Amino acid sequence: MSHNSNPIETDALIVGAGPAGLFQAFQLGLLEISSHIVDALPYAGGQCIELYPDKPIYDIPGVPFCTGRQLVANLLEQLAPFKPQMHFGEVVSGLQTELDARFLVTTTSGATFLSKCIVVAAGVGAFQPKRLTVEGIEKFQNGQLFYPVGAVQGFSGKNLLIVGGDDSALNCATTLAASPPQDRPKSITVLHRRDVLQANPDALNAFNEARRAGTVGFKVGQVTGYVEEDNLLTAAQVTDVEGQTLAVPLDALLVFLGLSPKLGPIADWGLAMARKQVPVDTEKFSTCIPGLFAVGDINTYPGKKKLILSAFHECALAAFGVAAHISPGAKTQLQYTTTSTRLHTLLGVSRPD
Amino acid sequence: MSHNSNPIETDALIVGAGPAGLFQAFQLGLLEISSHIVDALPYAGGQCIELYPDKPIYDIPGVPFCTGRQLVANLLEQLAPFKPQMHFGEVVSGLQTELDARFLVTTTSGATFLSKCIVVAAGVGAFQPKRLTVEGIEKFQNGQLFYPVGAVQGFSGKNLLIVGGDDSALNCATTLAASPPQDRPKSITVLHRRDVLQANPDALNAFNEARRAGTVGFKVGQVTGYVEEDNLLTAAQVTDVEGQTLAVPLDALLVFLGLSPKLGPIADWGLAMARKQVPVDTEKFSTCIPGLFAVGDINTYPGKKKLILSAFHECALAAFGVAAHISPGAKTQLQYTTTSTRLHTLLGVSRPD
Repeated sequence: MSHNSNPIETDALIVGAGPAGLFQAFQLGLLEISSHIVDALPYAGGQCIELYPDKPIYDIPGVPFCTGRQLVANLLEQLAPFKPQMHFGEVVSGLQTELDARFLVTTTSGATFLSKCIVVAAGVGAFQPKRLTVEGIEKFQNGQLFYPVGAVQGFSGKNLLIVGGDDSALNCATTLAASPPQDRPKSITVLHRRDVLQANPDALNAFNEARRAGTVGFKVGQVTGYVEEDNLLTAAQVTDVEGQTLAVPLDALLVFLGLSPKLGPIADWGLAMARKQVPVDTEKFSTCIPGLFAVGDINTYPGKKKLILSAFHECALAAFGVAAHISPGAKTQLQYTTTSTRLHTLLGVSRPD
Repeated sequence: MSHNSNPIETDALIVGAGPAGLFQAFQLGLLEISSHIVDALPYAGGQCIELYPDKPIYDIPGVPFCTGRQLVANLLEQLAPFKPQMHFGEVVSGLQTELDARFLVTTTSGATFLSKCIVVAAGVGAFQPKRLTVEGIEKFQNGQLFYPVGAVQGFSGKNLLIVGGDDSALNCATTLAASPPQDRPKSITVLHRRDVLQANPDALNAFNEARRAGTVGFKVGQVTGYVEEDNLLTAAQVTDVEGQTLAVPLDALLVFLGLSPKLGPIADWGLAMARKQVPVDTEKFSTCIPGLFAVGDINTYPGKKKLILSAFHECALAAFGVAAHISPGAKTQLQYTTTSTRLHTLLGVSRPD
């Protein structure tokens, strides 16, 4: 979507598709308030998926045990009746207030949203790929230097250097090596700083098989510089554990150094932030900017604990705050999902009887 | 337990074994704070079990669907590692503060608790059997007049009049009729104000079978008076739909008119209550009495919604409030169930690795 296209209009824009963002959309749905969700990652789940997808969680109330991944799957299932509108791989950047008091939000990819309210459920920030710390190399980004998140394709006939030793680096190498001949890179080399690879057994097996088959190579070392010719990146300077540096020729450099959360431009939205936290009230979880709410790990108030279950409560009350902001003076009644036939219709569970 | 026996000493006494009370004990358990739970009902679950055991709930976060009964079962399973100490069929009454600042709590049955903190999770009040509105009859209570909740036994060789037309009335009649001959009442008559019985199909089938077999009788009418001889209740005056009154002889009167929540003596604890709600802060969910906290439907604060999910959040923060009250000055760190090996040991899920 180009910057100049028509903005997406909505009642509420939710920043973050982690547990808080997903449950926020659910709570807004119960109040019949439309929402869109934006997340930097290419999938829902936030920290639950990025930091502990397969680790256990024991303190979700009424859920004696689940993994991060299961919690996210359950939240998505719960939200499904409201047909959530998710925008993945988008990092919010600009914030303006329009004359009609709506917010115009721009993302780094140029998408725009015109929203009556914003709920920041950004957790510890937008998960973004860690960058190579090689001075000057960033000028090749998106031309020959890539920081992929999620599936990778293309690079037919190219010499690839893939930096990293985790699942995503190995999967990228083996997937590209297994692509149809006409799409396949000319060569694929994985470069990792140690000769021990930390990845799940499936990824490791597939990688070792590709190495034995000769379709993927492996080197130990770190990128410490680069070689440029005619404005093109032609090689990476790779320094090995003995301190020896040699140039590894390449057409494209794919870097998988993990993701790290960055609050990013939200820090400049005027939210009176202290220590990366947004102060909110405990009635509506409203920030100092009317119409702008914050829930989950990013907010703070007296007594705040960074618990998923607290985020859920905050989402419920923030939903009523959003309702009051959208329709000032109108009193939004709390209805119960157990008894309300209106909610049963919205949830798609109404039974003719 | 008699009034004069030694009180049960504990860190925290939780009033109410509904979802809030159960999750409160879990949250205290995570902080290694001991607790006892008191509830008027003979089982856990509170409103979830009393008002909507088989109705659906769609808004517990991460639980797309459950019934009231399932939610309670899950909360009990989650709490199990902390071996909760539950006291059922007990209604709290007296509250005194001891010289050492602990609370001495008495129940209507005479049990006493000496506790550093109290968390009131009493919902809409203690569920108690509705009484017969027949002047003077209450003097027979517990001798010949009973308001059973839960399983009923005894009454061998007696003539019973069972008042009520719901599951519990019918189950009482059919269970007693099916008891071994030596335990069986001499006669069992069910009295209901209408000839239509509203009970689940199983209870209804068993009742109709007992009627056909002649082991249980049925009358339509209401108790409007009683006959007394030598300080004994000898008959109930029963008025039928035509307004005719006749005396039904009996040895014991068992009344099942449903349960209704009554806040009871808590209303006199000095909690600054307004409209049956206890005002609390949103940092620790503390009442105006230091060391006395309130969570769930019974509390109120700006923005309060009577949602189970809000109760859960309140329990988490109240647990830290309890910790601060018990150990002033000590800073209780939030540990995560995902990563803390200490919590894994407490939860009984630690793995040797």
